Amino acid sequence: MQRVCFLLQVRPERLEEYKQRHRAVWPDMLQALRETGWTNYSLFLRADGLLVGYFETPDLAAALQGMSQREVNARWQREMAEFFENLGDRNPDEGFLQLEEIFHLPETHDS
Amino acid sequence: MQRVCFLLQVRPERLEEYKQRHRAVWPDMLQALRETGWTNYSLFLRADGLLVGYFETPDLAAALQGMSQREVNARWQREMAEFFENLGDRNPDEGFLQLEEIFHLPETHDS
Repeated sequence: MQRVCFLLQVRPERLEEYKQRHRAVWPDMLQALRETGWTNYSLFLRADGLLVGYFETPDLAAALQGMSQREVNARWQREMAEFFENLGDRNPDEGFLQLEEIFHLPETHDS
Repeated sequence: MQRVCFLLQVRPERLEEYKQRHRAVWPDMLQALRETGWTNYSLFLRADGLLVGYFETPDLAAALQGMSQREVNARWQREMAEFFENLGDRNPDEGFLQLEEIFHLPETHDS
């Protein structure tokens, strides 16, 4: 599994609506994520809109490529784009900044 | 399991040394983390020193409290403190900013 951490910047004036949308992500969007290898996926938000994404996937390139071919993702990303700063004409899943992993302590299965 | 995401700011001029230290975390420090419920723990770094921590734990308060009582953690945190900005007289594990989780897609066990 690859562990992926990425950053995006949500517009501070849209934070509440962004949070609300993520309490009700479309079931077919969730299903598409599952089917394309996005697992243990969380989003975390700082009060100023800094968004941290974390997920695990067998293959990041395949996970991105897989979602890019899903119609539901195109619709979702189109609706989400206006919540973010500094994306230009990219979708959020094309414009995020991936961070370098510098440490990992594995899951323990014996405690 | 609680999923915890936190931020700290590494001094930009100390980034390489900070990364190097995390390629060789003391084995007794790793063992203390395991024993106090820190699991699937990763650190990610942005080029300007923004550090993102992610881990999973049965009980965050117990995980922090457990480490605060370990002598090895006191030594480790003392050595790490100088790498960070804006900590004042706190240790890194007392001064981090925890982020709010706003979305989670669980691990899939059937794919």
